Amino acid sequence: MDLLFSPLDVRYRKDLPESLSESELLRLQAEVEVEWLLTLMREGLCPKLSDKKLREICLGVTAEEVEAIEARTRHATRALVEAIAARLTEAGYPKIADWVHVGLTSFDTVDTAARLRVKRYFERDGLEAVRALKEQLWQWADKHRETPQVGRTHGQWAVPTVFGLGFAEALERICVLEERLKAALEGLRGQASGAIGGYHATSLLAKNPLKLEADFLEGLGLKPHYGSIQILPPEDILSVAQDFASIAAVAAKLAGDLRHLARSEINEIAEGFAAGQVGSSTMPQKRNPWNLEHVCSLHKVLLSRLHLLELDLVTEHQRDLTNSASGRFHAEVFMTAHLMLRRLTKILERMEAQPKKMKVHLEAAGSSVLAEALYILGTKQGVSHAHDVIREAARESERSGQTLFAVVKGQGWLPKGMDLKALEAECLKGSKVKIDAILKSRRVKAGAKAPKGGPSVRRRRT
Amino acid sequence: MDLLFSPLDVRYRKDLPESLSESELLRLQAEVEVEWLLTLMREGLCPKLSDKKLREICLGVTAEEVEAIEARTRHATRALVEAIAARLTEAGYPKIADWVHVGLTSFDTVDTAARLRVKRYFERDGLEAVRALKEQLWQWADKHRETPQVGRTHGQWAVPTVFGLGFAEALERICVLEERLKAALEGLRGQASGAIGGYHATSLLAKNPLKLEADFLEGLGLKPHYGSIQILPPEDILSVAQDFASIAAVAAKLAGDLRHLARSEINEIAEGFAAGQVGSSTMPQKRNPWNLEHVCSLHKVLLSRLHLLELDLVTEHQRDLTNSASGRFHAEVFMTAHLMLRRLTKILERMEAQPKKMKVHLEAAGSSVLAEALYILGTKQGVSHAHDVIREAARESERSGQTLFAVVKGQGWLPKGMDLKALEAECLKGSKVKIDAILKSRRVKAGAKAPKGGPSVRRRRT
Amino acid sequence: MDLLFSPLDVRYRKDLPESLSESELLRLQAEVEVEWLLTLMREGLCPKLSDKKLREICLGVTAEEVEAIEARTRHATRALVEAIAARLTEAGYPKIADWVHVGLTSFDTVDTAARLRVKRYFERDGLEAVRALKEQLWQWADKHRETPQVGRTHGQWAVPTVFGLGFAEALERICVLEERLKAALEGLRGQASGAIGGYHATSLLAKNPLKLEADFLEGLGLKPHYGSIQILPPEDILSVAQDFASIAAVAAKLAGDLRHLARSEINEIAEGFAAGQVGSSTMPQKRNPWNLEHVCSLHKVLLSRLHLLELDLVTEHQRDLTNSASGRFHAEVFMTAHLMLRRLTKILERMEAQPKKMKVHLEAAGSSVLAEALYILGTKQGVSHAHDVIREAARESERSGQTLFAVVKGQGWLPKGMDLKALEAECLKGSKVKIDAILKSRRVKAGAKAPKGGPSVRRRRT
Amino acid sequence: MDLLFSPLDVRYRKDLPESLSESELLRLQAEVEVEWLLTLMREGLCPKLSDKKLREICLGVTAEEVEAIEARTRHATRALVEAIAARLTEAGYPKIADWVHVGLTSFDTVDTAARLRVKRYFERDGLEAVRALKEQLWQWADKHRETPQVGRTHGQWAVPTVFGLGFAEALERICVLEERLKAALEGLRGQASGAIGGYHATSLLAKNPLKLEADFLEGLGLKPHYGSIQILPPEDILSVAQDFASIAAVAAKLAGDLRHLARSEINEIAEGFAAGQVGSSTMPQKRNPWNLEHVCSLHKVLLSRLHLLELDLVTEHQRDLTNSASGRFHAEVFMTAHLMLRRLTKILERMEAQPKKMKVHLEAAGSSVLAEALYILGTKQGVSHAHDVIREAARESERSGQTLFAVVKGQGWLPKGMDLKALEAECLKGSKVKIDAILKSRRVKAGAKAPKGGPSVRRRRT
Repeated sequence: MDLLFSPLDVRYRKDLPESLSESELLRLQAEVEVEWLLTLMREGLCPKLSDKKLREICLGVTAEEVEAIEARTRHATRALVEAIAARLTEAGYPKIADWVHVGLTSFDTVDTAARLRVKRYFERDGLEAVRALKEQLWQWADKHRETPQVGRTHGQWAVPTVFGLGFAEALERICVLEERLKAALEGLRGQASGAIGGYHATSLLAKNPLKLEADFLEGLGLKPHYGSIQILPPEDILSVAQDFASIAAVAAKLAGDLRHLARSEINEIAEGFAAGQVGSSTMPQKRNPWNLEHVCSLHKVLLSRLHLLELDLVTEHQRDLTNSASGRFHAEVFMTAHLMLRRLTKILERMEAQPKKMKVHLEAAGSSVLAEALYILGTKQGVSHAHDVIREAARESERSGQTLFAVVKGQGWLPKGMDLKALEAECLKGSKVKIDAILKSRRVKAGAKAPKGGPSVRRRRT
Repeated sequence: MDLLFSPLDVRYRKDLPESLSESELLRLQAEVEVEWLLTLMREGLCPKLSDKKLREICLGVTAEEVEAIEARTRHATRALVEAIAARLTEAGYPKIADWVHVGLTSFDTVDTAARLRVKRYFERDGLEAVRALKEQLWQWADKHRETPQVGRTHGQWAVPTVFGLGFAEALERICVLEERLKAALEGLRGQASGAIGGYHATSLLAKNPLKLEADFLEGLGLKPHYGSIQILPPEDILSVAQDFASIAAVAAKLAGDLRHLARSEINEIAEGFAAGQVGSSTMPQKRNPWNLEHVCSLHKVLLSRLHLLELDLVTEHQRDLTNSASGRFHAEVFMTAHLMLRRLTKILERMEAQPKKMKVHLEAAGSSVLAEALYILGTKQGVSHAHDVIREAARESERSGQTLFAVVKGQGWLPKGMDLKALEAECLKGSKVKIDAILKSRRVKAGAKAPKGGPSVRRRRT
Repeated sequence: MDLLFSPLDVRYRKDLPESLSESELLRLQAEVEVEWLLTLMREGLCPKLSDKKLREICLGVTAEEVEAIEARTRHATRALVEAIAARLTEAGYPKIADWVHVGLTSFDTVDTAARLRVKRYFERDGLEAVRALKEQLWQWADKHRETPQVGRTHGQWAVPTVFGLGFAEALERICVLEERLKAALEGLRGQASGAIGGYHATSLLAKNPLKLEADFLEGLGLKPHYGSIQILPPEDILSVAQDFASIAAVAAKLAGDLRHLARSEINEIAEGFAAGQVGSSTMPQKRNPWNLEHVCSLHKVLLSRLHLLELDLVTEHQRDLTNSASGRFHAEVFMTAHLMLRRLTKILERMEAQPKKMKVHLEAAGSSVLAEALYILGTKQGVSHAHDVIREAARESERSGQTLFAVVKGQGWLPKGMDLKALEAECLKGSKVKIDAILKSRRVKAGAKAPKGGPSVRRRRT
Repeated sequence: MDLLFSPLDVRYRKDLPESLSESELLRLQAEVEVEWLLTLMREGLCPKLSDKKLREICLGVTAEEVEAIEARTRHATRALVEAIAARLTEAGYPKIADWVHVGLTSFDTVDTAARLRVKRYFERDGLEAVRALKEQLWQWADKHRETPQVGRTHGQWAVPTVFGLGFAEALERICVLEERLKAALEGLRGQASGAIGGYHATSLLAKNPLKLEADFLEGLGLKPHYGSIQILPPEDILSVAQDFASIAAVAAKLAGDLRHLARSEINEIAEGFAAGQVGSSTMPQKRNPWNLEHVCSLHKVLLSRLHLLELDLVTEHQRDLTNSASGRFHAEVFMTAHLMLRRLTKILERMEAQPKKMKVHLEAAGSSVLAEALYILGTKQGVSHAHDVIREAARESERSGQTLFAVVKGQGWLPKGMDLKALEAECLKGSKVKIDAILKSRRVKAGAKAPKGGPSVRRRRT
């Protein structure tokens, strides 16, 4: 085998979907050419042939055929066109061969196929990767709706919460972002506007070149972009990439959080291990959160790829090639995000939680994490400057060794029946309200209609 | 005056709108606190006071007052809260003072105000900056609907086009992006979810803390985000920033193109100069496109700011401060994009075009730029392998010194009446169809309803 | 006061050194002009005046004077030149005034002054910021040379180490990077090569324009760059910025590590608090590592600024202005790095360590963290496949509840006298050797010669 | 063949050197393990075997062998270790097999091999790529030392220069950067410091673990880094990458400039075409500068890769894996820079210059581009306010249609014999002085000693 260079191929290609591969891109370019021939046939320009037959002949064109021609012509799209024409001629259709690509410029094919790749990737694999992650998030949120945990700000114990809340919040963020992602997918564009995007060629072919283009693109499930020059401005792909990258960032955030919860001192969760797998070669007791760290690491790769796309929005005049080599790399944003989502989903499928350890931390935190609740209660009870009063009580607690609750109780203003237990319960009420609001929202349920069932068809807790 | 450090202040602050300034941000934080007090009043928790009176007392709080308190407490939001409470107490409302900020955590105020700043900026200045640029683009596109120019790919003369087309295409791109930008603005969120975003405090204050939050945010024109932790996840601001940055990228592209058209050898446009202004101190004949270059230069600043925002999507647990210093810089994306749009608009207001020079280039290009049209015509006329036939003709033209058109004419298959003039006219048809489709589209007309008239109320060509 | 926009001015200007301010930059531009006049005087072209007198007259030029002229001429450098000439004329030296800036182009002044600013910043403030941080690192490393701590990989207890080692390693990294930084500072360049960098003007003024330039630059402590076009290629500033940014990245890494050690569950260090300062407004027991988080947050700002500089290496022909606006922002790299180093130094000055807590964790980790040592010992003792043997022992330990050491001891191959205590001591030997090698190295001692004493003059442990 | 994803493999792998491939990396990891065994043998720990024999057995280990083991152990380095041990055992050396990797941690092997790859790449291919480009730059600079061209600022004709100067300036920039690059290569580090970088294991193996490590690394041509934790801090690779990226940026700048000189309207250079190659499929007269644009396009890819490396400087505690996936991509900086340098070199090998066209532009610019020279001459002749005097003359020239030179001549102060021709010659003097200073400098000559001859052994003009 030839030498390989990029880790995407060397290391990660087994985890990547075919829909993002280069061979799929070539196939889609051929598909664009076929669709154009069909359009020309409908327009009465090119001799007719059945859709099925045409695809049969043209879509089988191989990378090897194209490369052989490109070695001579040094023009990738022209090589594809000649390869398809050769196949048509061989099959006995030289008159159709004469019409291959007529009226198009190379980037009508290249840029339209690039959008098709993005579209198909999401239809086949990308949205499913999001859905599968959402399902896991839903299940963790649901299962731990009432599992108490101490909330942490600045790595410090802050106020009580429930373990499921973090999953629900991530789920909500992803659902909101997915709506925007889907709108971005609707915004993907194609073109058949010819050299410099000026409809020069198609004006000679049809009365209404805009209609011709729209018909052609409809067959591919895309819309035209009149802001196109000879190339499609890449902001439509960028928008999809940005939204997908933001979803991946939520995954990175969650992976980072879980990684810290897996620390030896905290130990509230652990990555599930396959039977027989060992944590570290010399320290079997170690359960390194290496998959979680992998997600965080890929996020940096993703960010660098996103920057590249943003650099590519500016090109020159009706076109130059300064976006050509760089443009080939755009799909790496989707590849890295895909790897991140799949990996996190797998982690969640067999992650282990330790509610007992969570309880230990909450108890260790003690009533100091109830200070905020006490100050609110105080204000409500009419205690003036309640904020200062509780701060002073906290200091007193530090000085005397008494719990904060005991000190405040001694101040005599607490409502009847408000003991420590009751206050703690009060403090978790908000978290539960929030988690329910998320899990029952229209947005999350809409996601449930996704292929393969989705969250809502799964077992609901009762 | 104190030392200054950032070029945004040293050099560009005169060109920046107040709505993006730091003092506006402080005012908006006070506005958030006022809105919260009003919400607590409606809920029957805090003693009532009229909206107007409350604003009168609280919104006047100054940066100096806040800074003085912060120097002691080292906590910016707490300082604001105390400053407002002090004003209320002084005004004779100590019982209301006790309720300032009760139930909120600092970042309920900080993050909600940050969104308000973005929202208000676009309402007051940002969308108007887009509109004003669109108006200029419309006018240039409209005025030069029929001004012939040679289209350039790779900096080489390619096929004929019209000068107005580039403006129309930029207009279309911006209109498409603006729709997405407006959707992003609708997605801006606020929060009143307290410590760790768990509605702990507000659960103690109200039966339905989610309703309390929604009521509060409605007063500010925002929606809640249940994906919030203690801080609002910044993807809503990022989305707005990304879309606005893409619009600015279109401006950068156009500025770059115009800059090249202003080259001494090309000279198809020139930046308009103020009376008495000279181009270069020692070479008055030079008309440096320095404003256009300024737009291109700021685009790099913009990109670096956008990267920062993308780094800020990942934070830890219920919150940390690793997005705090960096978060202060987020609005610089809007500042730099604003400077770019305003500058380009000003340039277009007095730019000078040289249609005569455009004609010179088109004539110099000669019939060679008609090769594509000839090949399409040939295919249509049934010439087999028309692409190769025209390529051969072009070589023959190079060898013999005859024009390409003459060579092809000699081949005898051109349709009757198709002389050089007619063919050139055919070639511009597509550009005109496209320009009309853009200028008359619903999208562009929708933009026309923008404040201060917009494109369509201006003189339409007849 | 005018509106402010950038957080660098709004929030951080009090922590920034004058040497990075804009007013200092203007002063340095005036200094460049003075040095040029002195060079012309030495060359016998311009009437003479004493160095001292010349500086007295010219260096007082104010931003207000310059701005007033620029409002008319719209040319910043020309405005400075006229302001200086006006002062010279007023002072009775019109013949000298005629020679101000003669032979220079604007960017000879602008770019040379920009390098001077970088150079002066490091001489006055930047290297001192590095030195002060190194001193703190030295002291923490030295003080905790023998304080046992559990080393952590993947957030998991790995093998024993000493607390001081992390500081020593950071110190070593910074020392290595500082050597490269100093070499980069030596590489800072200036220029006096005139329009398009072609020595056109100075060829008319002097026999050897290269010598004229070298003389001029020597007075400023800079060297010429023959790779200059009309502007100085910015890679010299970029190199300094990259090295300084790498030092700041070490600071960010250390801040991040310490932040995690300050977690409630770990609690091995805590940020020192000022008397009377409280951790959180409602939870005084919280000691949020907010300064450490601030360092991490600024690192993201720094990275975004560094990207901008890297975008600026490419300009067009003999010059364009596409690096002009962006170039104004280059010094923000130094500003953000400076803020990071100073903040971390302050943190270290009053940070509190909890060796007892470190011991608790090491003991909790138990002999499992000695697995690696045991496997090495085994191999040395001739145990075949020692790695597998110890892994099996570790599993046995997990199954049986026996400590790993006990299981291995039962295998009977441990050298005589190798009890648990002795093995632990062996394990720390390497860390101590390393820490000593760092603290006693030539590199660290060289740093000791820095202004204000540096590490080595401080108390050395004996 | 399996699916491929990255354009580096799909499209560019034929242009990439084996030294950057993944299989080379695996070979280097085996080489590191061999070197470690040799070190243990010298230390008397491991049974001896000849260097040659050992390499013969161990270096043949294949990716397939390693992958097969990794599928089971899920640990890449452990798999390599087992594969080598298996080979040694098969070859009859089980006692040596027991010592493979003993004392090392995985990243001693991984990180040391990564540096070796960078080192070897530059020794074999990288520095040669730089040298070959320098040779081309030298030849173009030398050949066009006296070819007049108009210098351009802001795309406007500015002052006369010579065509060779731009190449000389690029050459000088690259030479300066190459010095820094070489220093960075000297700074590449290796390690054998074991778990957490604390020399735990090697302390048990040798009296002086630092000496053991230094001996080992000397065999590989590397130095140790005491700032290492369990992983080598990546700033040494980053430094090499940054310097190489800056060299590539100079290539991008030159490619961009040449691209513009190839514009139809300017036409001062053209990419050389292979016999039979056509410019555009339908427009054979077009000579698109597509290779130049390719260089510019790859520069954006390069920048995005560089950003990734900069994100990787910060890791956690003694190590985490958040730099592991991302770290695999670091070498992509070298790949993209390599592609850029090679491509530009090829372009320069057959580029065509059009001195006649350059002359046309210089003549069209006329005496207006001599304004600066006239103002300098004026000052020298004692004309007061010469700058204003020439500006006024230039305006007069515009008004009257007289050339600037004629107007100034009429003022009567020009030195005797200073006619237009003489003044033009004066103006080119500086450019020639500069070009000579560069071509004859020590720096450029040092480069000439590079393998395969280098510039100086080529034909010198006489």
